[in-house]
Amino acid sequence: MAERAALEELVRLQGERVRGLKQQKASAEQIEEEVAKLLKLKAQLGPDEGKQKFVLKTPKGTRDYSPRQMAIREKVFDVIISCFKRHGAEVIDTPVFELKETLTGKYGEDSKLIYDLKDQGGELLSLRYDLTVPFARYLAMNKLTNIKRYHIAKVYRRDNPAMTRGRYREFYQCDFDIAGQFDPMIPDAECLKIMCEILSSLQIGDFLVKVNDRRILDGMFAICGVPDSKFRTICSSVDKLDKVSWEEVKNEMVGEKGLTPEVADHIGDYVQQHGGVSLVEQLLQDPKLSQNKQALEGLEDLKLLFEYLTLFGIADKISFDLSLARGLDYYTGVIYEAVLLQTPVRPGEEPLGVGSVAAGGRYDGLALEEKVRTTETQVLVASAQKRLLEERLKLVSELWDAGIKAELLYKKNPKLLNQLQYCEEAGIPLVAIIGEQELKDGVIKLRSVASREEVDVRREDLVEEIKRRTSPALRIC
Amino acid sequence: MAERAALEELVRLQGERVRGLKQQKASAEQIEEEVAKLLKLKAQLGPDEGKQKFVLKTPKGTRDYSPRQMAIREKVFDVIISCFKRHGAEVIDTPVFELKETLTGKYGEDSKLIYDLKDQGGELLSLRYDLTVPFARYLAMNKLTNIKRYHIAKVYRRDNPAMTRGRYREFYQCDFDIAGQFDPMIPDAECLKIMCEILSSLQIGDFLVKVNDRRILDGMFAICGVPDSKFRTICSSVDKLDKVSWEEVKNEMVGEKGLTPEVADHIGDYVQQHGGVSLVEQLLQDPKLSQNKQALEGLEDLKLLFEYLTLFGIADKISFDLSLARGLDYYTGVIYEAVLLQTPVRPGEEPLGVGSVAAGGRYDGLALEEKVRTTETQVLVASAQKRLLEERLKLVSELWDAGIKAELLYKKNPKLLNQLQYCEEAGIPLVAIIGEQELKDGVIKLRSVASREEVDVRREDLVEEIKRRTSPALRIC
Repeated sequence: MAERAALEELVRLQGERVRGLKQQKASAEQIEEEVAKLLKLKAQLGPDEGKQKFVLKTPKGTRDYSPRQMAIREKVFDVIISCFKRHGAEVIDTPVFELKETLTGKYGEDSKLIYDLKDQGGELLSLRYDLTVPFARYLAMNKLTNIKRYHIAKVYRRDNPAMTRGRYREFYQCDFDIAGQFDPMIPDAECLKIMCEILSSLQIGDFLVKVNDRRILDGMFAICGVPDSKFRTICSSVDKLDKVSWEEVKNEMVGEKGLTPEVADHIGDYVQQHGGVSLVEQLLQDPKLSQNKQALEGLEDLKLLFEYLTLFGIADKISFDLSLARGLDYYTGVIYEAVLLQTPVRPGEEPLGVGSVAAGGRYDGLALEEKVRTTETQVLVASAQKRLLEERLKLVSELWDAGIKAELLYKKNPKLLNQLQYCEEAGIPLVAIIGEQELKDGVIKLRSVASREEVDVRREDLVEEIKRRTSPALRIC
Repeated sequence: MAERAALEELVRLQGERVRGLKQQKASAEQIEEEVAKLLKLKAQLGPDEGKQKFVLKTPKGTRDYSPRQMAIREKVFDVIISCFKRHGAEVIDTPVFELKETLTGKYGEDSKLIYDLKDQGGELLSLRYDLTVPFARYLAMNKLTNIKRYHIAKVYRRDNPAMTRGRYREFYQCDFDIAGQFDPMIPDAECLKIMCEILSSLQIGDFLVKVNDRRILDGMFAICGVPDSKFRTICSSVDKLDKVSWEEVKNEMVGEKGLTPEVADHIGDYVQQHGGVSLVEQLLQDPKLSQNKQALEGLEDLKLLFEYLTLFGIADKISFDLSLARGLDYYTGVIYEAVLLQTPVRPGEEPLGVGSVAAGGRYDGLALEEKVRTTETQVLVASAQKRLLEERLKLVSELWDAGIKAELLYKKNPKLLNQLQYCEEAGIPLVAIIGEQELKDGVIKLRSVASREEVDVRREDLVEEIKRRTSPALRIC
């Protein structure tokens, strides 16, 4: 798909975990065309056009999708969904409205942007504002703690969006969440991998994923001498650094928010830094920051995260950026946000803003119905001995990159039996088992879950063998 | 897919043209399970469960889709969408709400079931009640007269539906409409073909499509002596004949609606009849009915329709049924409704009701953007000489049955040039041309639209040749 075509649909990744791609982008040209059409039509209609009673507009902040726009939307969604499925995610859907009280108190000041339904008797209802609160309600209602799911649906915000900049009152969110308790940074690394895979597949130009951690930000504010009560408002100043200069941000901190110039400069020394894992290591040596417990935890997790990102082959896309501060209401750990490096800008448009991700857990142990598989995972990457997490991460990354739908357990040293049981529960037909001997021999043991037969496959033949074994079955299914 | 699985999702075909499949079916078991879960959870929560503030229910008449239900829903939608695409349809989408005045006056008494949004300042809005009014607004707004489109989306009715019978306040409609002016009965026959293809593919058991015509019903009421003002109310009595006995319907007509017993009996003689094309021919000989201009037109069109249905190989699925009367507000000609013959019934459930279709037009001559194809049609079935409509219908039917995405122009004797131009406008890569000589030789001339090269292909090799030529291109695209 051409770069331009995809861009018309894609806007920004935003929200909790891989919150996903918002479809808010339309060209200024298209809108001008529409307006011109409407004015022309209005002129033709005149006052006496008896039968022609349809009001010829969509509600403010909304739009139709023409067949041409739908063709593009479907291609973009296909890329996103096939990536989510490659990573073994399930899909759910929820109603477009929720009980009003389900949404109450969840969005702070933004609550005024919620669309309420008219009281026509019965329950009081509101249109969903995001997919996160309905997901939380779904988890609670079904007593689920562990699930990896995606949800692609429209959400509603009674905002005054700049439609010329591709922002709407009705728009899509593509959420991907991993809920559960796991060993640190493994699911986080997978979320970043997913984001990179999608952005690469969409071919919308080069991008960078900024990463930070809430604990590092909080620790930094603390050692710089920001009072606790001002963390939030200073955060929102810092968050502007991608749009305005440090001087302007400093003026806001001092002039409007009452920091001393010294405190502001101290913050400035930190938040103007960005880099790779070497910056993480440098800050781990920082005498003040490393003494702050929160910051230290955040930095150590980031270091681990970078190890996994290197194994996933995406470390060069990631920038540890101390000015990244968005969405702190939601987040307790790692945050991230991808930005396009060369946004094609048209007259009157700003460059596109791009989004964020945070920690989650992992779908485990849930009893699955056997008759209907809810994921399409072809193979689980497993290990036969301890200390093979790195090898598992390398192999699963190779498989994803070759288009194979693959999963691994988010545990450093899972037992082989547990890995095999997981496949049976989830209906995954194949297991690719890594062991010390296999590594020496340059092979992978490929096991059929149903027949329990195992054969050694040369690593360079593994992708083809998995495809050969799973494609007919998948088609029948 | 197993019969039972599909049934849980599928409910009834209803509405204007191929209005499509409504997803309103859930098993009584599932609902009981959900209720049991909720009660258990409620008991566990108790009054002091501080943080657990989510209200653990979806709004009345709505439901979540679990991964398992989503897997089934996706399979059902895949079947429906691939059929729509095989027939060359485009897809559009519209906002979930419309200006309130766009919906005003469109649904008669049912308007009270429309969900209004609260007046929070700005425009007054309502949730869409169906996909037909938004489609009409879309056509008017974009000045389109000819389009073949499908639209699969949720609609909203503030009804008191029996969820145990699979009816909801939020549910899917799968609409397929052909808008435009064409030679009689060709698009109508294709709509019926589409309905049969989908119902067959879903493997939900044997089915029958009841067909009638509004003009026949009106003519029949007229010759039986029903006053014009009572046509509508008598229609709704007739419509109950699939659920209650003729005696009960007659009692309603006489006791409540003021017909004389003689008039009612006269109606009864007609509406208790059903059959195939022979019943059409018999009624064309009916001395009274054939004297009524409206009824005669309807009968003649039905006769033509049956010819086309025979060529499409689905005549055995169609029953001309004089008691079919539903949705008369919309319809001006042919109406149809499919019913399942052996509905699996569970305790406490009624058999599923199944849906309806009406005439439309056909997408033609619209200037398409060349860069983004909005249909996936692989081949146009064309003719080089006149009087080959029957052969075109036979061939296109063969292609559809073999899974090829194919179209034909809905004209008895289209010019070859017009057919080739249509392909260029719509980006259809191949033309299968039937001519007198080709028929004698048992071949089809296959033309590449881009290169203009033509080769004769033996009819039995045509499907393979089309697949060979189009599959790589489609994958790249």
